[in-house]
Amino acid sequence: MIDLDFLFNPGQIAIVGASKSPQKIGYAIVDNIVKSGYRGEIYPINPKEEEIAGHKAYPSVAEINKPVDLAVISVPVKHTIQVAEECGKAGVKGLIVITAGFKEVGREGLKLEQELISICRRYGMRMLGPNCVGIMDTHTPVNASFANGFPNKGNISLISQSGAMLVSILDWSFEMGMGFSRFISTGNKADLTEIDLIESCAADPNTDVILCYIEDITDGERFVEVCSEASKKKPIVILKSGISSAGAQAASSHTGALAGSNRAYEAAFRQSGVLRAETLNELFDLARAFSSQPLPDQSRVAVVTNAGGPGILATDAIEKYDLKMARFNKNTIDKLRGNLPQEANIYNPVDIIGDARDDRYRFALQTVLEDDNVDGAVVILCPAAVTEPEKTAHTIVELNKKYSDKPVMAVYIGGRVLAEGKNYLSENKVPSFTFPEPSISSLEGMVRYSGFIKEKEPVQPVELEDINRETVRKTIDQVLEDRRVVLLGHETSTVMSAYGIPVSKTYLATTEEEACEIGSKLGYPVALKISSPRIAHKTDVGGVAIGLHSDKEVKRAYRQIMDSVGYYLPDAPIYGIEVQDMVDEGVEVIVGMSRDVQFGPLVVFGLGGIYVNLLEDVSFRLASALDNYEEVKEMITETKAYTLLQGYRGKKAADIDALADSILRTARLVRDFDEITEMDINPVRVHTKGSTALDVKITIEEKEK
Amino acid sequence: MIDLDFLFNPGQIAIVGASKSPQKIGYAIVDNIVKSGYRGEIYPINPKEEEIAGHKAYPSVAEINKPVDLAVISVPVKHTIQVAEECGKAGVKGLIVITAGFKEVGREGLKLEQELISICRRYGMRMLGPNCVGIMDTHTPVNASFANGFPNKGNISLISQSGAMLVSILDWSFEMGMGFSRFISTGNKADLTEIDLIESCAADPNTDVILCYIEDITDGERFVEVCSEASKKKPIVILKSGISSAGAQAASSHTGALAGSNRAYEAAFRQSGVLRAETLNELFDLARAFSSQPLPDQSRVAVVTNAGGPGILATDAIEKYDLKMARFNKNTIDKLRGNLPQEANIYNPVDIIGDARDDRYRFALQTVLEDDNVDGAVVILCPAAVTEPEKTAHTIVELNKKYSDKPVMAVYIGGRVLAEGKNYLSENKVPSFTFPEPSISSLEGMVRYSGFIKEKEPVQPVELEDINRETVRKTIDQVLEDRRVVLLGHETSTVMSAYGIPVSKTYLATTEEEACEIGSKLGYPVALKISSPRIAHKTDVGGVAIGLHSDKEVKRAYRQIMDSVGYYLPDAPIYGIEVQDMVDEGVEVIVGMSRDVQFGPLVVFGLGGIYVNLLEDVSFRLASALDNYEEVKEMITETKAYTLLQGYRGKKAADIDALADSILRTARLVRDFDEITEMDINPVRVHTKGSTALDVKITIEEKEK
Repeated sequence: MIDLDFLFNPGQIAIVGASKSPQKIGYAIVDNIVKSGYRGEIYPINPKEEEIAGHKAYPSVAEINKPVDLAVISVPVKHTIQVAEECGKAGVKGLIVITAGFKEVGREGLKLEQELISICRRYGMRMLGPNCVGIMDTHTPVNASFANGFPNKGNISLISQSGAMLVSILDWSFEMGMGFSRFISTGNKADLTEIDLIESCAADPNTDVILCYIEDITDGERFVEVCSEASKKKPIVILKSGISSAGAQAASSHTGALAGSNRAYEAAFRQSGVLRAETLNELFDLARAFSSQPLPDQSRVAVVTNAGGPGILATDAIEKYDLKMARFNKNTIDKLRGNLPQEANIYNPVDIIGDARDDRYRFALQTVLEDDNVDGAVVILCPAAVTEPEKTAHTIVELNKKYSDKPVMAVYIGGRVLAEGKNYLSENKVPSFTFPEPSISSLEGMVRYSGFIKEKEPVQPVELEDINRETVRKTIDQVLEDRRVVLLGHETSTVMSAYGIPVSKTYLATTEEEACEIGSKLGYPVALKISSPRIAHKTDVGGVAIGLHSDKEVKRAYRQIMDSVGYYLPDAPIYGIEVQDMVDEGVEVIVGMSRDVQFGPLVVFGLGGIYVNLLEDVSFRLASALDNYEEVKEMITETKAYTLLQGYRGKKAADIDALADSILRTARLVRDFDEITEMDINPVRVHTKGSTALDVKITIEEKEK
Repeated sequence: MIDLDFLFNPGQIAIVGASKSPQKIGYAIVDNIVKSGYRGEIYPINPKEEEIAGHKAYPSVAEINKPVDLAVISVPVKHTIQVAEECGKAGVKGLIVITAGFKEVGREGLKLEQELISICRRYGMRMLGPNCVGIMDTHTPVNASFANGFPNKGNISLISQSGAMLVSILDWSFEMGMGFSRFISTGNKADLTEIDLIESCAADPNTDVILCYIEDITDGERFVEVCSEASKKKPIVILKSGISSAGAQAASSHTGALAGSNRAYEAAFRQSGVLRAETLNELFDLARAFSSQPLPDQSRVAVVTNAGGPGILATDAIEKYDLKMARFNKNTIDKLRGNLPQEANIYNPVDIIGDARDDRYRFALQTVLEDDNVDGAVVILCPAAVTEPEKTAHTIVELNKKYSDKPVMAVYIGGRVLAEGKNYLSENKVPSFTFPEPSISSLEGMVRYSGFIKEKEPVQPVELEDINRETVRKTIDQVLEDRRVVLLGHETSTVMSAYGIPVSKTYLATTEEEACEIGSKLGYPVALKISSPRIAHKTDVGGVAIGLHSDKEVKRAYRQIMDSVGYYLPDAPIYGIEVQDMVDEGVEVIVGMSRDVQFGPLVVFGLGGIYVNLLEDVSFRLASALDNYEEVKEMITETKAYTLLQGYRGKKAADIDALADSILRTARLVRDFDEITEMDINPVRVHTKGSTALDVKITIEEKEK
């Protein structure tokens, strides 16, 4: 892990481009550092000034002649290289480059940015930015940014790839009464990336939740590695923008970064224990929940309300978000029945009705929080004549502290008459909401994270002893030598067998007679399939015949296939026809792989056959995650295909273990061979015992060795 | 339509239970009426007082001796009957019964409520409530409720089945600066229902949007009828709670009302042009949009932003909500390129970058609003050093008025520094949001509604001349006489044929020999299917054999079926085995019907076969909507089955017209015969020409005639 103390807790800060003119960014930076209460040395750099903001100004970093941890650079872009060079020479540990005009403006800028990087490398400096707003740490304290304001002290770190967003959220956070430990603007991420910053915040004792707004990820593999560890320590919630095809376009014109596919992000976040927020609202709702409330043990929620309608809405949301309405134990029910008015609803949601004062809230909330079947509670309050919103807020806070292992959310539906109560709640770390639904979605995020960190012991990767890398290497080399990118049927058959993946036996015939010979050798019935590097979907061009029982049928089918393919694709090069043994019945599934530009090989599993693309009943995993059967099986269970595999409507169960083994081996194969860019086994037929890869397509490309 | 002038614009109001004691509801009501500026006569009724709030008090309604439009009743529940009776005798036109303790508390209360209803019927009075908060109309003005406050004048009507929700939202609305025309609490809906109130608000010239919070619907058929008309005049947005199974339980314990199934609600809302909100936030976001902005023509949205990140988030949301990013015409692009800084993004989203002042916002927004390819715009503003949030707010309002046929939403990301600008926007009817996503989801609602009201001319229902009701009547009567509820194969075959739905020919055989005879008559190949009123899923018990080519095969299959069924279900009564002709290949779909308790017969269509329940690729319509081919075809296109039907991956297209005809006729059949409670045609096989119902299950029950 990189030590980022020079950034968040620097002993000295030089501000290159410091200014006395309030319109200048260089003024704002010095002003912010001073006003934040920063306790280290401040060295404004400006050759034209004697002092700035009460601090002696220096003409250049070189002339400070004392150690400098951090230099914040805000000079015209053409001077940045020289300044960085000077900082390097002066032994500065790290830079924040505020200046814009680099990668984001095109090729010229990219060149400058690369120069910056190489200067940093040369002198062993680390750099945040360029094109960033800076950083703030409320505990150090330091505000090394040009943003207008300094956040309230708190335990949330926010890392943002958009500087404007950072500034906006800072402003908004005052209204919400939210507290932060760090605000970090990553800018162009030329050196330090969101990954380094997540790692640093995970180690920061003052941070309990890490929020990120990102447009792309710098290094997929390292992201997964770092976040998997970090997320065990504290929740990481990420809003990833540019998820849509149109959005990705905007992202790439904005940052010049290549955006990974949404599904790969989904798989990577999941594997890393990262919670994904879909909207900014969700991001901050989750932040409020995680930063103030304990994690629930399970998902059983109790609702206490003084009005029926919102109680029903909360119940709806609990079902929608796959949480459970807590079922109270008998003791709880008896107590509620004995002490609440007759018209109250004593089952969950507990409706203590419109004339409830604080005492009734206290009794009901305490009673449900004492129940072992309750993992967390939502308290709903509507303003009625006798309601005591403030007093009840105090009660909620008090009980929340007393039952400190159960999260409590408050829903205060209303405006001015509830304002005091709401304020008291947020000041005392009970998240309050105006409407029920977001309180439930926040609880859902907490339940999900709680499940993640409680997960079973780390599983050992499966050792596969019986794989034959050499055979695959030879086959791939041969195909590449042949200047092809798609393996033929008999070649895929060899590759699969070398990795222990059961595959239907396939041989290439170039004449009718040869086909009959192979047929007899395999034993009838057999199937015929056209063999051509240009035909991906064989069935669509009449390139397949199945269930052939004799030489005669094979010959006829051979001619028909040739005729049909010749008709549809007269120009396709035809290698011959593959003869394949017919395979037992079974559930047809797909196992496939595509290579994501950010995260590497991504394995897909789902319902097979011609419906794959139509139904999209699929689950995804990074191949790197698929090194143990637990993960593979979880992947299988996420699809509807799983229902079929278990034996659907009277059918016998299929051999899920055999399928899992094939998926595990496929993942290993694509990890072992970078050359494989795409792979489709569609279908894998899963029998009651064993499974067979029926139709395998492998696409490769040459790699530099 | 009921004339509800006595409720919303009464000439005189009697308040029964009026009080001088500020703790009493009867005080709040008089106080509210007076303070609202009500201009009609006020008659407080209280035998112990001479005057209340400056108005002469009467001992009873009888003694007013002048006409009374409206009596608001807030007396102990035991006196309500007598008071209602007095009101009736005195010729009062309508009642608002505030008092609680009726249906919602159980059987006793229900009895009282029924008495109330019969009194109203007897005297021709109409009643709102009981157990309600009352009504407010800001234009009359009148506040005949006990709620704490009176809404700002506006053009939104809110109808709420939850009184507490109404009061809460009233309080919250001040904070939001929202204006309302009417606030209506429906209470128990013993007489006037949400339907009457929607109808009245639709006719109210001061209302432009109708919002409802409902827990159940009183009369499904009338709801659809009334809302279909009302929604052509103005948008109706409904939040229906109790959608989850758990939620429905809460709803029924709360209001004692039977909740219809979620899917039936979905179909009914859709058919009625009602927009459904999923959350309270969404309900009010839509209200703000509809109450202040023009409807967009199509779905092409332009985004103008001073920061990249939020622009990407807006783009993501536009794709997520199925709107389109507007593609500017050449003129727009040229203008933007010529006048914006080089680093700006001139394509959509238009990024006018961080140093944009008001003039740049003005130029960019005006330019995109002038473009014919733009139907609406979202303006995003992040607070940067030179940003002019207030001035820009004025500009947005001005341009919004100038281009008055295109909706504009403002997204002001931030807090205190943007507060003034946000206020100006809402005061001037431009909805403003803190984050991008809700602005887009609101636009989506507007686009959907705009599409609804623009929809093609009303289509004529198809006249079906060739149906034979008598045959179906006879078959059903026979089965009922037989004390069965499930029709056998040959009976369904008769029913289907009578309604012109092509069905595979089916005859019942009771011996192997008979089966062979039928087989020869139909022509081989044939299929055999077990015939038993107790066997629903024939395949699961080995009750089906297909592709039988000879007497020999039929005999063998006959014995196998009997053996297998005897093994699985030894006690099932067996009528014999049905012999069916084999039907041409085709795409297998399901057409079915279940009867919803609120909305009547609900027709389902989707991908057929054993995957139906697994994949749930289905669309729903109320049978009442399916009287024309346009609607049927729309229903078909909503499913993935449609992709298959069009000819998927090289297959020929299926005969969608024939399928549509079968669906239309099925809808007619279930409309004509109330006795049919459930129906499953799974599969209907759709050939390249024609379609055939292969396996039909019809369940019936006796109806009182």
